[in-house]
Amino acid sequence: MILGSSGSIGRQAIDVTLSHPDDFRIIGLAAHKNVDTLLRQLEELNPIFVCLVNEEAARDLKARYSGPAKVLAGKEGLEEISTLPEADLILNAIVGSSGLAATLSAINAKKQLALANKESLVAAGDLVNERLKKQNMRLIPVDSEHNALWQCMVGEDISEISKMILTASGGPFWGKPKEASEKVTPEQALDHPRWRMGRRVTIDSATLMNKGFEVIEAHHLFGIPYEKIEVLVHPQSIIHSLVEFVDGSLKAHLGPTDMRLPILYSFSWPKRLQSTLERLDLAKVQRLDFFNVRTSDSPCLALALTAAEKGLSYPTVLNAADEVAVDAFLSGKIGFAEIGNIINTVLEKHDPITIGSIGDFEVVDAWARDRAESVVLRT
Amino acid sequence: MILGSSGSIGRQAIDVTLSHPDDFRIIGLAAHKNVDTLLRQLEELNPIFVCLVNEEAARDLKARYSGPAKVLAGKEGLEEISTLPEADLILNAIVGSSGLAATLSAINAKKQLALANKESLVAAGDLVNERLKKQNMRLIPVDSEHNALWQCMVGEDISEISKMILTASGGPFWGKPKEASEKVTPEQALDHPRWRMGRRVTIDSATLMNKGFEVIEAHHLFGIPYEKIEVLVHPQSIIHSLVEFVDGSLKAHLGPTDMRLPILYSFSWPKRLQSTLERLDLAKVQRLDFFNVRTSDSPCLALALTAAEKGLSYPTVLNAADEVAVDAFLSGKIGFAEIGNIINTVLEKHDPITIGSIGDFEVVDAWARDRAESVVLRT
Repeated sequence: MILGSSGSIGRQAIDVTLSHPDDFRIIGLAAHKNVDTLLRQLEELNPIFVCLVNEEAARDLKARYSGPAKVLAGKEGLEEISTLPEADLILNAIVGSSGLAATLSAINAKKQLALANKESLVAAGDLVNERLKKQNMRLIPVDSEHNALWQCMVGEDISEISKMILTASGGPFWGKPKEASEKVTPEQALDHPRWRMGRRVTIDSATLMNKGFEVIEAHHLFGIPYEKIEVLVHPQSIIHSLVEFVDGSLKAHLGPTDMRLPILYSFSWPKRLQSTLERLDLAKVQRLDFFNVRTSDSPCLALALTAAEKGLSYPTVLNAADEVAVDAFLSGKIGFAEIGNIINTVLEKHDPITIGSIGDFEVVDAWARDRAESVVLRT
Repeated sequence: MILGSSGSIGRQAIDVTLSHPDDFRIIGLAAHKNVDTLLRQLEELNPIFVCLVNEEAARDLKARYSGPAKVLAGKEGLEEISTLPEADLILNAIVGSSGLAATLSAINAKKQLALANKESLVAAGDLVNERLKKQNMRLIPVDSEHNALWQCMVGEDISEISKMILTASGGPFWGKPKEASEKVTPEQALDHPRWRMGRRVTIDSATLMNKGFEVIEAHHLFGIPYEKIEVLVHPQSIIHSLVEFVDGSLKAHLGPTDMRLPILYSFSWPKRLQSTLERLDLAKVQRLDFFNVRTSDSPCLALALTAAEKGLSYPTVLNAADEVAVDAFLSGKIGFAEIGNIINTVLEKHDPITIGSIGDFEVVDAWARDRAESVVLRT
């Protein structure tokens, strides 16, 4: 089951399943509103269910599609497809806040969940963890850094960790003077040196906000305190993350910068499958570099770490305001350096609450978006 | 139980146990003939048993020691101390061929064995594996590279490996022109840039013979074919080795270059203990480099890989001839570049047999030493 099949992770996940036809079969696809892509995927994959969350797009799909798959629509459709008895594993690669509802539905139905949706843990980590605990379940992280940490933890005991180290490529502006990054265009910011990703996450990489989100996700995924999570700039992105243990040993996961590798592992876990993905040749790479990250040079990372420490609904606001600010940057409404300022303004205005339900999340998320939009208008 | 307590690994192992007094207690010590060191260690550690393999040294120790430990002597003493019911774990850090007898005794007595003795696997790997299989036991490797591979394999399945990559610092002459290394003195060769080790292993590092031995050890330890074992030069010795899996993922073990780290893990396994060993700071290290190794530039490595592939008693001869040649170099009898030539000459003269017993090993080992000595005399 691929939720978010028209996005970058969704398409790469389909690629992975097509490379392993004896191991995986896609029985359902869900997307937001991209009818053309869905029609192509329906033809190629022949699933049993398909869902478009946007009702109008779903009607359009129904009109243009005559195959055997059952067409579902809206939030109800997404809930149905996230809980199907036929599915052994749900990949939640939805971009945006409707991903949280799908995560909670899948957990309620006790479905094995491979998670690539940022909102689920960044914006509602405590809520998701509470539901997981109730069901005695764990999430498999798809994100390359967290998947790397997950792999490093195979056979290890979480109580024997001294820290987790998330590597960061540093994005396209690493090592460039700050003034230069203040004048960048969306095209420059979208030109990520290492990873093929969606537009928002590419901008979030350039601001290092993405690394802040990943710190929050690691905290919730592995249940470790923030003081045990570090960020290390590693421009080659060959070491995908590291775990340091109490004895002083470190384990690292390495590989080519190809999201299909963590996607494959999240599907095959706890086994590994033979793949035809490119192999890493360290002698060809020749060298790996490492730098400390200074939060004074990375305002978005600093905002994320502060919001993380404060907890409650601050990370929810962080995520929502960031999405609005990044959209505004991509559509040319604001400059690159304004992204952090806008998020900061919204965070400062926020009265935090505990996110105890999806309703709480929706209220805070909507407030933060609304507030961020008006800050953008005034910028 | 520390066998080889006066050597480099033995002394560092004692250091490890003294740092963890609540976790470990040394109940016995064995060494070859270093009475002075043993007397100091007896005073410091107060074990129940002590053994000197050299009978004369044992008599000397008895004359000078009045403490409560039982003093054992000779091969019989070593066998007794390797099989003591009181010992939970035996560290075999004996340098040289008497280590093989201790390994086999400990296996026969079903003792958990942490192995640092090279001869056991390099010179008699098939024999040791046959005995382990009979007892349904596994060895814990202490050597930093193999301990790293062992750690990377925690929770993983050997059938899902595509290769094991042993890192090599390259020794003190890596990157230097070949002519320069031909004129080196023992002092220069003993000046290893990364690891604090015994004299023979330091010279074996400089010739890369040590890496050849490690390839043979990895083959026997993990039961993987030689074509799946690679050597990668990594001058900083921060990555201690890597495993590549069939999906394209790699796991690496990293840490400071301190043998006490793998020694500690081999004692605490499968748990990890909090240690006060130095922590690795990758941002301080700044960069890691990697190079392919060319066997054409490393005659000793090439000899080792050929002897490994040929199997039978060739690795036994390789080890014995190398020990003689390295001794001859250290005592100034031959030049650095002659080490490989002498080993090659002995290997070429060898009629291989199957090493099916310790007697077979002793015959081949003695033949190879004798032959190597006479080649040294003629050089």
